[in-house]
Amino acid sequence: MHTAGDVRVEDRDDPKIIEPTDAIVRLTATCICGSDLWPYRGVEPADHTNMGHEYAGVVEEVGSDVKNVKVGDFVVGSFVISDNTCEICRSGYQSGCAHREFVAGTIGTQAEKARIPHADGTLVPTPGQPDEDLIPSLLAASDVLGTGWYGAVAAEAGPGRTVAVVGDGAVGLMAVLAARQLGAERIIAMSRHPERQELARFYGATDIVEERGDEGVAKIKELTGGLGAHSVVEAVGTQESTMQAIGATRPGGHLGFVGVNYDVTIKGIDLFFAGIHVEGGPAPVRRFLPELIQLIWDRRIDPGRVFDLTLPLEQAAEGYKAMDERRATKVLLTF
Amino acid sequence: MHTAGDVRVEDRDDPKIIEPTDAIVRLTATCICGSDLWPYRGVEPADHTNMGHEYAGVVEEVGSDVKNVKVGDFVVGSFVISDNTCEICRSGYQSGCAHREFVAGTIGTQAEKARIPHADGTLVPTPGQPDEDLIPSLLAASDVLGTGWYGAVAAEAGPGRTVAVVGDGAVGLMAVLAARQLGAERIIAMSRHPERQELARFYGATDIVEERGDEGVAKIKELTGGLGAHSVVEAVGTQESTMQAIGATRPGGHLGFVGVNYDVTIKGIDLFFAGIHVEGGPAPVRRFLPELIQLIWDRRIDPGRVFDLTLPLEQAAEGYKAMDERRATKVLLTF
Repeated sequence: MHTAGDVRVEDRDDPKIIEPTDAIVRLTATCICGSDLWPYRGVEPADHTNMGHEYAGVVEEVGSDVKNVKVGDFVVGSFVISDNTCEICRSGYQSGCAHREFVAGTIGTQAEKARIPHADGTLVPTPGQPDEDLIPSLLAASDVLGTGWYGAVAAEAGPGRTVAVVGDGAVGLMAVLAARQLGAERIIAMSRHPERQELARFYGATDIVEERGDEGVAKIKELTGGLGAHSVVEAVGTQESTMQAIGATRPGGHLGFVGVNYDVTIKGIDLFFAGIHVEGGPAPVRRFLPELIQLIWDRRIDPGRVFDLTLPLEQAAEGYKAMDERRATKVLLTF
Repeated sequence: MHTAGDVRVEDRDDPKIIEPTDAIVRLTATCICGSDLWPYRGVEPADHTNMGHEYAGVVEEVGSDVKNVKVGDFVVGSFVISDNTCEICRSGYQSGCAHREFVAGTIGTQAEKARIPHADGTLVPTPGQPDEDLIPSLLAASDVLGTGWYGAVAAEAGPGRTVAVVGDGAVGLMAVLAARQLGAERIIAMSRHPERQELARFYGATDIVEERGDEGVAKIKELTGGLGAHSVVEAVGTQESTMQAIGATRPGGHLGFVGVNYDVTIKGIDLFFAGIHVEGGPAPVRRFLPELIQLIWDRRIDPGRVFDLTLPLEQAAEGYKAMDERRATKVLLTF
């Protein structure tokens, strides 16, 4: 991305092993994330930035210290590099790893190949070479599925719980899928787009709420005996969606927030009198990858359906445009 | 409190039973809370407001529906009225009860007697008539101990954990006591007042950090291998103390915030990249009261030492002044 809104596909030298813990991955497919729209819209800076942070593909070369993956393995990696051995990683918060590095902006995986640092900690091999139709789902595990899943886990979605999901983008839809897998009793998708409502129902939503803001909160309360949802996932990152999510959570309930929220400010006293649990941030996708890969491998979940536009990498600029204009939920880029 | 800074002790009619779920309690002692300083300093409105929300004493009369307490019982109650039967109460969040009512500002327990609504849900009888020396500790359970305890529970203080407590006021000191009782391995009190440091050590602090703000955060990281504390309790409620608490919590760690925080704003993105758990608000003291009363009764904890000035109720105005000027940590008012 040369500058905000200006995406170009250009030739670059092949990446090379730099550290003995690196691996080079030849990507099988890549994609555009909702968070890529922040620099596209000028909210985050962009200056000849290497874009993309989701990836799945085949290991082409490994550094001398790499032990857990080998050349030829099909791997999925998290959008955050982690060593997976430090104290923070071992506690399940790999996105706060002492060696963390964001793939976005530096490495950039909207490319044919990528150098992945800390390969042993970051990459997870699949049980074998995947069938073609599993590729989109495996790619989704890299961020959008892992992030939606984390949102639902942070919100403590589970049996007996009513879960409300604020946001019908790809991450919100994946949070619906996760809430269903985690055994939630009732899953309320907050959405006003007919196609996304349909996809939300496919992934497990039992109710749809079209209202937003205070009206949305009132509707959630109406559906939950006046109390609010046990679990709420915030998957947008705007001021309105954040306040909607806080308001929709019952006292003592859990809010998982995964929408990147640059323009949000929260009054301390609003959080104080809400009396809720809040957990969020960049998802520790690595924690969930082995389980998510297995669920996909066993065809028990189908996160790949979240891609509703497929383009060759050369047309990446059109992919950004389609997502920016909300003509596409999520764009798959092929080679 | 006629208006900010103007505290007067005046005669009022005795309270009467209004609802059949009410009880009238004759207070044995009462006290002034750090949060009473918000209206005193004009941050919250005050207009002939009945002050006080901490109370312990003898039941003098009960309404016809009251079953759990009887006339003559010595009782301790929470600073938030709750029915203790609704779904929110049963989940342990009595300060979010469907029937919640704040004692502060309406009922007011800086008085000889008080009408306590939802007596069955709000009051907890002690095992018998307490010895005189236990009265301050039992009174502390009503808010300051219960609130510090909740802060430590929300921060998930426990075995193997390093707990940092931001704030050396009465609530902060009680959070230190709680962290110790909950089995924390290391307890860092952030304080720069020699007498309070001493009291913090008495209650179980293993380390003292005098630095504040970014320097305080750096010091906590230095003491925790660069990672930050597992558990942090915010017991002040200012912008600086809040950011200090967020910064001192390691990724994936837990922040319990119990300082009333009117003037605090939190940037969403700061919370996002902190990657921590946050829980707080008005403490559900009722959840902890039976356990706290027993610990006091068995003389295993001595929260009453937090009172460092005792005055007769008539001199309440001097008590407010002493706390406002930080000459006293917490003031006990006797009859």
